[in-house]
Amino acid sequence: MQGNKMIRLNCDMGESFGIWKMGADEQIMPYISLANLACGFHASDAVTMNRSVELAKKDNVTIGAHPSYQDLVGFGRRSISCSLEEIKSKVLYQLGALYAFCKSHGTTVAYVKPHGALYNDMMRDQNIYKAILSAVAAFDKNIKLMILSNPNNEAFEYTAKMYGITLIYEVFADRNYNDDGTLVSRMLPNAVITDELEIMQRVKTLKEYGFLESINSKRLYLKADTICVHGDTEDALNFVKSLYKVLN
Amino acid sequence: MQGNKMIRLNCDMGESFGIWKMGADEQIMPYISLANLACGFHASDAVTMNRSVELAKKDNVTIGAHPSYQDLVGFGRRSISCSLEEIKSKVLYQLGALYAFCKSHGTTVAYVKPHGALYNDMMRDQNIYKAILSAVAAFDKNIKLMILSNPNNEAFEYTAKMYGITLIYEVFADRNYNDDGTLVSRMLPNAVITDELEIMQRVKTLKEYGFLESINSKRLYLKADTICVHGDTEDALNFVKSLYKVLN
Amino acid sequence: MQGNKMIRLNCDMGESFGIWKMGADEQIMPYISLANLACGFHASDAVTMNRSVELAKKDNVTIGAHPSYQDLVGFGRRSISCSLEEIKSKVLYQLGALYAFCKSHGTTVAYVKPHGALYNDMMRDQNIYKAILSAVAAFDKNIKLMILSNPNNEAFEYTAKMYGITLIYEVFADRNYNDDGTLVSRMLPNAVITDELEIMQRVKTLKEYGFLESINSKRLYLKADTICVHGDTEDALNFVKSLYKVLN
Amino acid sequence: MQGNKMIRLNCDMGESFGIWKMGADEQIMPYISLANLACGFHASDAVTMNRSVELAKKDNVTIGAHPSYQDLVGFGRRSISCSLEEIKSKVLYQLGALYAFCKSHGTTVAYVKPHGALYNDMMRDQNIYKAILSAVAAFDKNIKLMILSNPNNEAFEYTAKMYGITLIYEVFADRNYNDDGTLVSRMLPNAVITDELEIMQRVKTLKEYGFLESINSKRLYLKADTICVHGDTEDALNFVKSLYKVLN
Repeated sequence: MQGNKMIRLNCDMGESFGIWKMGADEQIMPYISLANLACGFHASDAVTMNRSVELAKKDNVTIGAHPSYQDLVGFGRRSISCSLEEIKSKVLYQLGALYAFCKSHGTTVAYVKPHGALYNDMMRDQNIYKAILSAVAAFDKNIKLMILSNPNNEAFEYTAKMYGITLIYEVFADRNYNDDGTLVSRMLPNAVITDELEIMQRVKTLKEYGFLESINSKRLYLKADTICVHGDTEDALNFVKSLYKVLN
Repeated sequence: MQGNKMIRLNCDMGESFGIWKMGADEQIMPYISLANLACGFHASDAVTMNRSVELAKKDNVTIGAHPSYQDLVGFGRRSISCSLEEIKSKVLYQLGALYAFCKSHGTTVAYVKPHGALYNDMMRDQNIYKAILSAVAAFDKNIKLMILSNPNNEAFEYTAKMYGITLIYEVFADRNYNDDGTLVSRMLPNAVITDELEIMQRVKTLKEYGFLESINSKRLYLKADTICVHGDTEDALNFVKSLYKVLN
Repeated sequence: MQGNKMIRLNCDMGESFGIWKMGADEQIMPYISLANLACGFHASDAVTMNRSVELAKKDNVTIGAHPSYQDLVGFGRRSISCSLEEIKSKVLYQLGALYAFCKSHGTTVAYVKPHGALYNDMMRDQNIYKAILSAVAAFDKNIKLMILSNPNNEAFEYTAKMYGITLIYEVFADRNYNDDGTLVSRMLPNAVITDELEIMQRVKTLKEYGFLESINSKRLYLKADTICVHGDTEDALNFVKSLYKVLN
Repeated sequence: MQGNKMIRLNCDMGESFGIWKMGADEQIMPYISLANLACGFHASDAVTMNRSVELAKKDNVTIGAHPSYQDLVGFGRRSISCSLEEIKSKVLYQLGALYAFCKSHGTTVAYVKPHGALYNDMMRDQNIYKAILSAVAAFDKNIKLMILSNPNNEAFEYTAKMYGITLIYEVFADRNYNDDGTLVSRMLPNAVITDELEIMQRVKTLKEYGFLESINSKRLYLKADTICVHGDTEDALNFVKSLYKVLN
């Protein structure tokens, strides 16, 4: 069984807003491959976006747009029932805004990863998924869409192909999975894995052998192009450095 | 003395916001050549931008970005002292956002016309003018910048050329001009011309003979690529139709 | 069987925002008894609130706060899943802001009517209802809360009493009711009554005899302190005038 | 010559926004007497305000409203040319919002200290000063207004009395003063005093003998009810503790 030789780290970046700072972007950027840059709807602002693109480019990190529901005070973490036209339009707006900074720095937006509640809604509602795909495809079919690797990858891929969009599959190294490949609900006590050594071991296994162990020790062969890391906690930097070593 | 055979009408469009409507965009669009589309900072939102681009394209109207200071409640009408990096970044953000809708509809942004206080600040402060030029140039040197035609056109043109940007010169048909080609201050009672016939006559003269009469009846030969019309007053539509007849 | 001799008209007022106007507030204000004033979260701004309070006071109209989820671009019409602390805090914030304008004009806030999605959420979720009650009670127990009159009025009243809050029961004259006193769903074709004469007749019956007819002609004796009218449609003014005549 | 026996420390507090944290409020609160609480226009939000009021009350700190221009992304640090009606209305809005949280916690707003650019504009423009006074007076004449102690204190006091408002005079311990009692401009290199011992010595002198030394060692007998400290820098806590010791 083949492993995932090319798992890359992605991290939400550029989530400061105005005077308020968030995340150790400068320290973490060198260790990640994909920077999901906020676009002003849940975090960031024009100046922060400009500087974040500059930073990512300096460190040769691939830039992705991280669009969100329009909810600064809630950091885009809760669903807002928008029409599909609204979702498509909001994704286009944010994607274009980030693109302008990329273009001005001689680089581009390589992918889109919806943020927070929009990401969750995309995974549970095919219409929202399609609205996002249609936004990306209308802008540029070379831009990829990052989704959560799951038991229905094939259905997601089939739909994406209809829009001419390539998917990037994301796996959470610090979340437990059910036997069917879905995430253990955050309502349950064992949803999150906090032991760093365990996480590292999971990532190694995923890289070498291509599977994650479910909570019942079943082998889950999930597509894994990238693993999500967080940059806003205290120990984030060391953790990211360790993961970086495991993967490179 | 040559006239201005190709004077085109430009109009602020797409200035609704959410549920609030402004302007008779659908009625006026067929009679203008250049639509200055709001980008979400002083007016408009993602859905409104999407629809405005669609409408402009349907009527074969050239689309310009109408970026502004970030001040919805003040409609971008008052100056906010931003750093030059902030001005450049805010213009890029809005330009990119509008570009995304244009690209998704198979058209593009042809020019930038700053809105309200940002327009005024650009005309009085060379550093702000340069910040805006640098934003446009960093995004795409094929995009033009609309400025107010004035006695220092040459200096403005010289600077624009350094950034590789072509200018569009705008004249106000309903404003009186001083002998030196500057606008009569709005503090003065005769700043605005309200008589429609007089305005029409001025536009005809500008088109046929290339000059405007100053308040002292001096002939002002101002570059005039475009005349600004307003779409949000009651008589706007008839007025625009009349101007359209004069110019075509 | 007794009627409802004192049914009063309530209307959402002060829903302009910045330069954008909404509603014929000046025309309608003289014909209503209760003005639900927007507080800046779904509509209105500080200046608009100031003028709206002034206008209501001039016409001797009782002022209510009309707090909402924080969603200008969506006009507060869609639910945002907030924590209960957030709901309580947002209601307090908006209630206090409106109170300041009332106090400065020598009047006060007499009641709270949540707006749009927050109103709907209050009616379907007891925890949200309690969060709103706790906000009102924490500010001033003399302030009443307006809710939708429904088959569970007693349960709502029981809870309100625990917080020391008096309820105002609202009935929709232009909506059909099921036999059990709930509203016919907007999903169904006969949800809304559009015939003005029929609405007038319903209001007369409600006033004289105290009941509304359900879609199956069953008599529903619903508490009815107030009827909601709309001020933002074209025929609103005439309709409100007619209702005013019926009720006075 | 008498000293200022009762100089109290004031500090901007509650300036987090949504998920973004600012300031060590919990650590600093016990050492200050006056907490200037942000009201949502330059920082803070409904939940943050609720918690900030709760914290101040727990530590027996007097609460002041810290209203600002409406500019989250700029943290209220730049002037926005508002009409006087707008300034009065914005102050009322923010004051009322904070009042609601105070009332709900059984405390009240004791004073108003405008924030950032609004504070500066108040000190240089008598009309803005009066607009702010009129807002405070219209709400509650028991609420005081904090201003910068300056050579024209008498003129400021005269105006304040016309509105029935009592002033609180603030002095900056870490700023150099000119011989005429104005602050040394921030354009000049010696505007800010960075040496902590020197600052402590100045505060001691101010407390014991009632004067500050100007840059030319002239004695300035400035009214000093309160000294402003900052809570958002790294060494803020130790510095505040030291000042606290000097003053108590």
